[in-house]
This record gives sequence, C-alpha cells and structure tokens, in this order.
Amino acid sequence: MPILNETNQPDGSTDSGQHAVNSLKKEEEFENSSVKQLSKEEEHVLQTFRLLIADLCQQFNGGHPGGAIGMAAIGVALWKYVMRYAPHTPTYFNRDRFVLSNGHTCLFQYTFLHLTGYKAMTLDQLKSYHSDRVDALCPGHPEIEHEGIELTTGPLGQGVANAVGLAMATKNLQAIYNKPEFDIVSNHTWCMAGDACLQEGVALEAISLAGHLKLNNLTVIYDNNQVTCDGSVDLTNTEDVNSKMEACGWNVVDVEDGCFDIGRLVRVLNDARHSTEKPTFINVHTIIGLGSAVAGDAAAHGAALGAADVANMKKAYGFDPEQYFVISERVRDFFADLPGKGQELVQSWEKTVEEYTARYPEESTDFKRRVEGRLPDDWKDLIPVSLPETPIASRKSSGLVFNPVAERINNFMVGTADLSPSVNMIWKGKVDFQHPNLKTTCGINGNYSGRYIHYGVREHAMAAISNGIAAYAPNTFVPVTSSFFMFYLYAAPAVRMGALQRLQVIHVATHDSIGTGEDGPTHQPIELANLYRSMPNLLYIRPADSEETAGAWITAIEAKDKPTIISTSRHTLPQYKQTSRAKVAQGAYVFQEVQDADVTLIGVGAELSHAVDVAHALNAKNIKTRIVSFPCQRLFDAQSRQYQRETLQRHRGIPAIVIEPFAPNGWERYADAAACMKTFGHSLPGKAAYKYFGFDAASLVRKVESYLQQVRDDPLLKGEFVDL
Amino acid sequence: MPILNETNQPDGSTDSGQHAVNSLKKEEEFENSSVKQLSKEEEHVLQTFRLLIADLCQQFNGGHPGGAIGMAAIGVALWKYVMRYAPHTPTYFNRDRFVLSNGHTCLFQYTFLHLTGYKAMTLDQLKSYHSDRVDALCPGHPEIEHEGIELTTGPLGQGVANAVGLAMATKNLQAIYNKPEFDIVSNHTWCMAGDACLQEGVALEAISLAGHLKLNNLTVIYDNNQVTCDGSVDLTNTEDVNSKMEACGWNVVDVEDGCFDIGRLVRVLNDARHSTEKPTFINVHTIIGLGSAVAGDAAAHGAALGAADVANMKKAYGFDPEQYFVISERVRDFFADLPGKGQELVQSWEKTVEEYTARYPEESTDFKRRVEGRLPDDWKDLIPVSLPETPIASRKSSGLVFNPVAERINNFMVGTADLSPSVNMIWKGKVDFQHPNLKTTCGINGNYSGRYIHYGVREHAMAAISNGIAAYAPNTFVPVTSSFFMFYLYAAPAVRMGALQRLQVIHVATHDSIGTGEDGPTHQPIELANLYRSMPNLLYIRPADSEETAGAWITAIEAKDKPTIISTSRHTLPQYKQTSRAKVAQGAYVFQEVQDADVTLIGVGAELSHAVDVAHALNAKNIKTRIVSFPCQRLFDAQSRQYQRETLQRHRGIPAIVIEPFAPNGWERYADAAACMKTFGHSLPGKAAYKYFGFDAASLVRKVESYLQQVRDDPLLKGEFVDL
Repeated sequence: MPILNETNQPDGSTDSGQHAVNSLKKEEEFENSSVKQLSKEEEHVLQTFRLLIADLCQQFNGGHPGGAIGMAAIGVALWKYVMRYAPHTPTYFNRDRFVLSNGHTCLFQYTFLHLTGYKAMTLDQLKSYHSDRVDALCPGHPEIEHEGIELTTGPLGQGVANAVGLAMATKNLQAIYNKPEFDIVSNHTWCMAGDACLQEGVALEAISLAGHLKLNNLTVIYDNNQVTCDGSVDLTNTEDVNSKMEACGWNVVDVEDGCFDIGRLVRVLNDARHSTEKPTFINVHTIIGLGSAVAGDAAAHGAALGAADVANMKKAYGFDPEQYFVISERVRDFFADLPGKGQELVQSWEKTVEEYTARYPEESTDFKRRVEGRLPDDWKDLIPVSLPETPIASRKSSGLVFNPVAERINNFMVGTADLSPSVNMIWKGKVDFQHPNLKTTCGINGNYSGRYIHYGVREHAMAAISNGIAAYAPNTFVPVTSSFFMFYLYAAPAVRMGALQRLQVIHVATHDSIGTGEDGPTHQPIELANLYRSMPNLLYIRPADSEETAGAWITAIEAKDKPTIISTSRHTLPQYKQTSRAKVAQGAYVFQEVQDADVTLIGVGAELSHAVDVAHALNAKNIKTRIVSFPCQRLFDAQSRQYQRETLQRHRGIPAIVIEPFAPNGWERYADAAACMKTFGHSLPGKAAYKYFGFDAASLVRKVESYLQQVRDDPLLKGEFVDL
Repeated sequence: MPILNETNQPDGSTDSGQHAVNSLKKEEEFENSSVKQLSKEEEHVLQTFRLLIADLCQQFNGGHPGGAIGMAAIGVALWKYVMRYAPHTPTYFNRDRFVLSNGHTCLFQYTFLHLTGYKAMTLDQLKSYHSDRVDALCPGHPEIEHEGIELTTGPLGQGVANAVGLAMATKNLQAIYNKPEFDIVSNHTWCMAGDACLQEGVALEAISLAGHLKLNNLTVIYDNNQVTCDGSVDLTNTEDVNSKMEACGWNVVDVEDGCFDIGRLVRVLNDARHSTEKPTFINVHTIIGLGSAVAGDAAAHGAALGAADVANMKKAYGFDPEQYFVISERVRDFFADLPGKGQELVQSWEKTVEEYTARYPEESTDFKRRVEGRLPDDWKDLIPVSLPETPIASRKSSGLVFNPVAERINNFMVGTADLSPSVNMIWKGKVDFQHPNLKTTCGINGNYSGRYIHYGVREHAMAAISNGIAAYAPNTFVPVTSSFFMFYLYAAPAVRMGALQRLQVIHVATHDSIGTGEDGPTHQPIELANLYRSMPNLLYIRPADSEETAGAWITAIEAKDKPTIISTSRHTLPQYKQTSRAKVAQGAYVFQEVQDADVTLIGVGAELSHAVDVAHALNAKNIKTRIVSFPCQRLFDAQSRQYQRETLQRHRGIPAIVIEPFAPNGWERYADAAACMKTFGHSLPGKAAYKYFGFDAASLVRKVESYLQQVRDDPLLKGEFVDL
C-alpha cells in the first residue's frame, strides 16, 4: 500500500506525495496567488511571527532579527503546508530534514518549533535566546543537541553541504531498503541558505556534487535578500546565480514576492519535492527586516531593531506596542493541527514498516539495525587477526584492516577526495554511489546503493557532506573520508563541526609526514597534527604499523560519539612484534623496557621505527634506552595518572625525548625534549627528507647524546623543554 | 610615448598590445590554423618537450608527466608567442605573471624556464627533479624562492585565487600611477588550472570575485583533460563549466585541439589580453599524457610512464630511444630570440619610467618606493602614541592604531570577509577597490585605486588572493585581511601558503575567545590558536589592550618576511599602565613583579585582565602572585634563555599558571598548570560564558589555590603539567 504522507495545503486539503495529479491541481489553484490572496489568518500569522522575532531580539538587545523576519512566509509555507515531520515525535525516522545553513537566523527555526508544537520549545525557552540561561534551547546558532534541530550550523556554507549529505543518506537507504510497494524511506531534505552561504567555497563544492549526483530529493531555498553584513551583496557579488546553479545541474525557480506569496512558495516547494531529475534551487526574493525602519538594510542583520522601531511595527500591524511575545489564539489555531498530522505520519510509517517486515523479514531486520544505529555484533571479527609481517605502508595496512569491514557492513559510506589510488580504500566488489543513469551518459558504473563516493577534489565539502550523512540518524551511517593528511586543513572547518556535534565520521589521512617526500613542503604536514590534537571530541591517531592500524580502526569504530582521524604513512614501515592493537586505546604504551634506563624515546606513528633504530644504537653505546609508542595523545590523557607515570617514567627522573617531524607544540606535556620540526619541509625523496631534517639514526643519536650532555652542563634544563 | 610591449607571433612578426588593429590581422591569419598548419619547427619543439618530460620523470621513476605533456602547445603559445617577460631579468617589474595552479605539472614550467633561457635553470638543474639534491630548483611543486616562479603552488585551487590577487595588484598600481601617456604598469596575469583546481572551493570563491571585479587583465587557462587521480572527471563533475564561468562574469573561449593548435591558442590568448570588460576563461581541450600508451588515462597523471613506453614515444616521433634529454639546435634556435626580446622589454620599460619621472617626479618617487618594497620611513609616526585610557575592545584599538597608517600609506590593501562593521578597519576617506562602472550598475562607489576590498563571505579566497597581492613584488603591497578569528580556520590553507612563502600578509582576527559570547561554540575558537602557534614563519599575537595592540601592529608591519595574525577581542578590555608596545616584540614580559613570589600567572590577550583580577585577590590572601603578559609564543621563543628564565622565574621554583580559554596544548613549555579549555564553548553572553567555564575571578582563585595544594600533596606534580 502507498504510504500516507499527508501534508497540509493552504486550502486545508492534503497532498499525498504519490499523486502527481494532485500536484497539478494545486498548481492551478495557486497560479495567481499573491499577497492579496493571503488569507487573513496567514497575514496575522506572518505579522505575529515578525513581531515575535523583533521582541526576542529586543529583550536582551542583541541577535539577528532581519533574516528571520524576511523569511517568515517561507517558514509558514514549510512548516504549515509542505514539510513532513512530527512535532511530538521529533526523531521520527522518515521525517523531512530541515537545515538552516544561515544559522544566525536561528530564531526563524526556534519560533516555528514553538508554534508547531515541539514540546521542549516552550515560550519560556524561546525567550532564552541571548539570555544567560546555561540550559537554553535557543543558542545563537542552532545546535544538534536540541529537539527539532538536525544539525548545528553557523559557519556559513556548511549547512548546504550538510544537506547534500542528508539527501545522499536518503538515496542510499532508499536504494538498499525500499521495495516497489514500500517506500519506507521517502523523506526530502530542505535547506535554507542566505546570500553568504552561496559565496562560501564549501557550499559551491557541494552544490556542484549535488548536481552531478542528481539529488532530486534536495531543495535549497535561497533567502535572497541581497544584504550581508557589509551592505548590498552587489559590493562583492554580481554573478548570475540562477544561471550558475543551472550550469551545476539544478532546477531553478524564482519566487518574486517571497515575503508574502505563501501560495507560490507552497507550489514551488511541492514541485521541488516531486522533481524527477535534479535538485531544486528556489530563489526567493525577500526583504531583510521587512516592516522595520531598517527594512532592506544591513542594519537589520545583526542587531536588535530598537524599542521605538519595534513599537512602530506593532502599531502598523495593529498590535499593542505595550504587549510583548503576543501569540493569539488565532495563531495557535492556525498551527494546531500539526502535532496530530505528525503523529498520523508516524503511525502510517510504522504500519508500513510492519507490513514491510512481514513481506521482507531479512531486509527489515537489517533496516531496523540501521535505524537503531547498530553495527552487526560481530563486526570486529571482520578485521584480520594476523597481518603481513613484511614491511608495508600504513596506508596499505589501513585498507587491509578496514576494507573487509566496509565490504560487509552497509553502515559505512566510504569516500575520497580524488585519491583512490593513494588511500587504498577500495574493497572487493565495491559499487560507486552514483545516479544510475550515469552509466548511460558517461559510461560510469554505479547507483545509489553504492557506498563508495567520489567526492572530487573537494575536501571541505567531503567532510561537511559526511557530517550530513552522519547526522541523518545517530550511527545509522558511519561516513569515512580519505585524502592526504595535509588536505585535512582544507577540510578542517567541517571536521571541527563534526567534533562539535559528536558525529562519528572517520577520516583516513595518508602521506602524514615529511616522509611523503618529493611533493614537498606544500604536502608535508608540520603543524596540522597540533590542530587536531587540540580539538575537543576528536581522536587523532598515528599508528606505527599494521597492528596499531588495526587498533586505530577498532578505536575509531567504537568511538560512536566523535570523529577520528587515522593518520597513515605513504612509505613502507617495518612491522613489530611488540605493537598491540589493544593498547592503542590507551594512547601510549611501553614498547621496549630496559632496566635502569637513561632515557625514554617516544616514537610516534611512521617514526616509531626511527626510535627503534636510535634506541638500538644508543643501547650499543651503553645509553640505556627504553621506548614508548605513542599513537594518540587524547586517549593517553584519559588514562589514570598512575598509568601515565608508569608508561613515561619521567617521575623517576628518566628524561623522555619525542621523535616526530611535526611542530613540537604540545609534546611538552609528555616529554623533556623534542627531535621535531620548527620549519616547513622540503621537496626530497622521503628518506632524503628525513635525513635533511636530522631524523636519520646517526643524527638522532647525536641529538640524544647532546641533550644528556646539555642537562649535565645546565641542570636547570631538566625542568625546561629543549628543542633538539 | 606608448610603451613597447612586443611579443612574438608564430609568423615572426611582433604584436604591440596597443594596436588592436594588429590583433585583428592576427585573427585572420590564424582563422583556419589547425594541427596541419603547425610549422615543422613547432612540431619538433612539441615532440622534444614531451620527450623531455617523459625522460625527466623516468630518471627517478616518479613525478607527474601526463599534464605537462598534454599542455605542451599551451606552453609554446605562452612562452614563445604571448607572454611578456625577460628570462635574463626574471624580476622585471612589469613582466606578465604566470601562475601554475595545477602545480604538480611543475615540469611544464621548469622545462619552459630552461628552454627560454632562465639562467638558473640549467639542464643539469632541470634534471634535479625528484633527485635527492638539496639545492634543487625543481621541487615537486613550483616554489617562489626560485627564479621565474611567481608563487608556490600545489594545494589545488590556490593558484587561481593567487592569480586573482596578482591581477588586482596590477589594477591598483595602474589606477594609482599610470597616466594617459604612460602605462608604466601594464602586465597581464596568466593562470593555468586543471580539472581539480576548478572543483576546489577556494578557486570558485575567487572566480566569483574576479568576475565581479571585471579583472580583464586576468586569464585562466583551463587544461581540460577530463582526468583526475580517480579517473574520468565524469565520476564527480558533470557540470557545464563554460556556462558556470559565464554566469560568474567571465569571457569564455574554447580551444578544441589544445594539444596542437598553437595558432588558435595564440589568437585566443592575445584576445584575452585585450579583453575590455571581463576576465577570460580559456577552455583548452587536451589529452593527458598525449603520445604515451596511457594517453587520456588517469595512469598518466602521477607516475612515470615506464621505460618501454618512453622508448616507443621516441620511436614514433623519429627520435633515438637510446638518447635522453635531447634538445636539438633547432629547438634551441626556436627559443633563442626570447632573452633578447625580454631585455628589449626591460629597456623600453626603464626608458618609459625615466620619461615618466621627468614628467611626474612626485608620482615617480612614490612609484619607485613601491617598486623597492619600502614603506615611507616615518610610517611609525602615524601610530598614535597615546591611546584611550578608558576600557575599549581590542578590535577597536586595532582600528585606532592602524587606520591612520592605512589612510596614508598606499602599500596597504585592506580587506574583509564581509565583517566591516565588526573589524573596525575603515579609515577616513577610504575608497573601495571596485570596478569604476559598478557605480553605474549598482550605485556602488569605488574604483581600482581603492584600497578597501570587500571580499564577500569568502575567507579562504581572501587569504589566497592576499598572497597573490603580496607576491606581485616583494613588499610592494602589504595586504591586510580581516574576519572573526574562528573563520581563519576556513582561510587556514591559504594562511599556511603565505607562511610557507614568507609573504607579508597581516590578518586581523577579532572575536578571539569565548568572550565572543552568544554566537556560541561555532564562533568560539578553542583549538585554532594552536594551529597558528605551531605554524612555522607566522606570528600569532594576542594583545591585551590598546598599547599591546600598537605593539602587535608595529611587529606585524616590521615583519617583512612573514604573515602575522593579530588576534583581538569582541568585548571591552581594561587598559593598563604596565603594558608596553615595545615589549610585545619580546613575546612575553613581566607585567607585575612581586618579592618572593608563590606563583606566576600568565595572562594572555583578552584574558590578561583575568590574571590581574585573580592576582589582586590572591595577593589579598597573601599568596604572592606575579603576572607575565604573554602576547606571542614565537616571539618569546626567539629570546635568550636567560630572558626567558628571568621572565617566567620557573627556574626559581615558582610555578607558572596560564589563563587562556583555549586548548592548553603548547603552554606546557612555559607553564606548570593551565586554566584553559578542554571542551568546546557555549552560547552565552560573554561574561556568562567566562563564568560558565570557570574564568571568573572566584573560580580562578580556587583553581590556583587547588593547584598549590595539589603540589603540596603530591610533589611529583611539580614535574608534570596540571589542567585546572
């Protein structure tokens, strides 16, 4: 049976998405709709909404009123007439997803959450915007932790890419689980974006990919008010945005009177839902701060309008200027049907899933596992217990460890920013995530059930889209990205957003040191690890060999509430018997112990082997040297102080020296001296680069000896950190 | 008199840019040019070039041959016929600038540098590609340090934005110095870009801005070989690139037979130089690895072709497969005229400047100062000696300090990523950098002599474009960018490229802590400072008040070989008598001394005032507390160990505690304990956010007392770092 996906229409009828004929009828109805055809109720709702925004900013004299005020009619069209969602079951699995990419207009969303009946968003809570309440549900930008919010937004452009990820997630689930009679996944993704979002590179990358993938379940609604902080958008952007979007493979529709024309908005939004071939871009012309004294002006963007202006607005609308946060019964009535409609959607969907389960029990079991965000219980068994003992690059180890998992477990959506030959993430029989017609047009094999994503050379969008995939539902997907480590600097703003939102995304970063070689300093990371080691809620792991790479993957897959970066080498690494996949979870562990040690060497990732070689040479010189393998600072920080002390042994007066060709910043916590890097790298073959910067065994022996001598000469150095 | 800007034509004639009529004649000549009309010489040159590339990759079995081979004809058109440059005077001021955005094809540029007679690029040096020579001029990507290279490229997309900056620099100099009869600046900027560059957000941002600015002196040449690492570009990009570029305001021209059709290439390149209204995008269809067994395939991209394949190519071209690096006399002759032509250009320009000097002595003096990369000697006098003693946000201090300098000294090109109202960088009488016609079309006032740039919400392009402006000629420009500090994460890849190239760019970053307040965790930096404190060749400075802000600006302006980030507060800060602009250059200094101190508090930037308050409270409790102000780690690292010890006093057993609401990583070098942040921030008013995270005086007092107690309880903690 068809699923009941009813949504309201301005005339009170319902629209079932399955019936295009209905849609056509609606078109006729709305053909000539305009401001004059706004119902009295709608007009009153729009005015109430705008005044609520004005009051909410006024109370603490701050915030972003203009955009939200300008977007009022868009919101009414979406929440009252178009979107399929359930205020009383906010996490209803098949709900439409809404992303507010212009997150500073968050009052827009908060206010509709309140009006449509989300229980958490009481009027009291709504008034917490810009207050000093630490439990506020109305932070300055939407946050994923709160009911009704799909994703945290704020840094501009991110939301557009997130929305692309959500739409991809839907496509993938549909292709895997839907059956001809059972659309158990059918949700649409709606994304609001402002002028600024569309200037950001991350959005432009994602837009290009979405057009390529023909994501017809995605709609970007452009709040085209032609104003940003500096003033008119003409100051900096005079491109033909519609033509640009069409060139990127999008449907483009204009809505001229976006502040009032709810009828046309509803029509084009419904059309967008039924788009057969392309994502849709709706260019909605609005006026920022409509009705205020600063309407159409940048001054309406980021400051309260002022008490006098708000009072004047109220008078003009026939409201009492002395009353604040007024929501009449008429307004309450207008939105009153939505929780009920939402519960009908939920029940209808649950019934469908029940019938689906009866007909397709195996698929249903798998689907429910995904809905619950679980991996198969035996996932760890897929990781090889024994790995090659001959030297191998850790980027290759990574493939050996993970590809059997990716092959068998459909939670994993694996992508690369055009580095398939380098990152070794291709499993047996992998299918590309592509529009199925691409085979006809470009001879490329793939379909939406594929789980290998060619992101193109778009690192930033890759990470932001992955956040969107991960946010579809908790752990339903585990997105994996891959590139050179250095290019996770391009991706960094989105990696950060993943960490902030506690989304499980695994980033596989190869070529992670000067050992990368000839590509030179533009490709050799020096300072980047410090960004990620400092970033809250993120694991940055540098495994030393295949065994530690297995440990890194296990840790990453088990870390369901945070992103992980697995940082691997381009070049071949020796394999050790002393390494341990289990001990990776402790962040650092004793790799080689020695009685009455003179010094501890901290070996990290690709350079553990340097520590091993140097220790060998030092021990031969009777400088008794122990070794600690140290793949992850954050995991080590989580251990007991006792474990930390026993591992490093600094409390016994044994100095620790870290060997890593990165900037030393932060190693001072664990070590007394560093053989690290204070400059950028150099284009040389990997081995030559190591030698050039003093990471060959002979140089490192000299450095350790020099350190021990320096400390003898100046005992004060014991309490200080020395760069070698 | 008109300047002689002769360039060769394939027929041996010369083309003076001033005469459009010539250009038309050329058009006719080349109208029907095609592969068949290649001269024998040209064909031989193309074959020689392709075999050189193949041999250069073969010798060390690595590198990127395919792109360079496919682009051969483009190179001949540029270096032989179109570009205005002087191989024997590589830094000739008015030379055309060439940027290789697809930097991995660097052999393309190196080989033409050799063939056209750049003295440093001997055949011996050319062969250093992928060798272990530490003095090689042929690193894996072009590097600015080497003769004939305008900018370091490699991270994709950067070069496109750099080229936009170069073109803007030209426009600005022209608008300021050229006179009707004197085009003392007239160079064109040429940028090669591959499929990948055009997928990167940074390029897309810059392309949009370049179209807006109508930079008709900029040409992007798209090496459209439809291949990236993963295979066909169709895997990930099926957009209509030409329409997209047109929508962005560019001229678009196709060259169908880009591997051979030198005639058409020359014609469209010359047309591009004479474009009157728009930048030009030349879509050149090429075949990667042309002539090899992997022609048209991704396998030609990033690996040597193999000895057998190279031998076959040689046989097919009638070359001896046993001979390597063959450059015949015919090829030498073909390029032989270029150094001479170049010197003629230089002499002609020098003569013009001489005549200009006679006619416009004042302008000429100023122009020459710019050419020499100097500021007026008395620039420092423009910085106010006394600054307000009442509390003021350091972002405002920054404007007070710098705006008088920006107003008077035309080296400074100041821009913002749409945060003019927040960054306070507008000086009296500032003029926007805009196309002069924008006034007619959009009512916006500005022209190319303007030095205030509205970059739009394009942080990444802003920084990359600024690198291009800075690279026009050493210190001729000092670009200044501005945004919220958090969004320098978006800009980070370009900031890094500036540091790598030792370009003086000053980044003004406001809202630099949780004190930013309501905008919440997406806008509150926690880990970002650690990236920049770890980044080589970059100064990250957090001034504490106006006096230190003056010090930060003086340091930044004096740091002619590196970028600086000046990190300022959104919120009002107290002003101190003890702060010192001069001492900022030392990185840290004693702000408040005390006899027999129990503890040192390290106050940083906006939170120095927290240290002052806490010290006051602690001293009242007879915990004798001294204070160090610590605006810049890198500057402090450059001081003598003695100065460092005397400042921090840790060698006397006085523990130091740092107060900064950032991740503590790296402070372990200077402190024993940290009142820092291990989580992301929270959306609260600034003061409430400080309190929420324990940065109010009462909490900090408790933390210091707790630390002193902890150390008494467990003396081992003295040698360890404690998070409070």
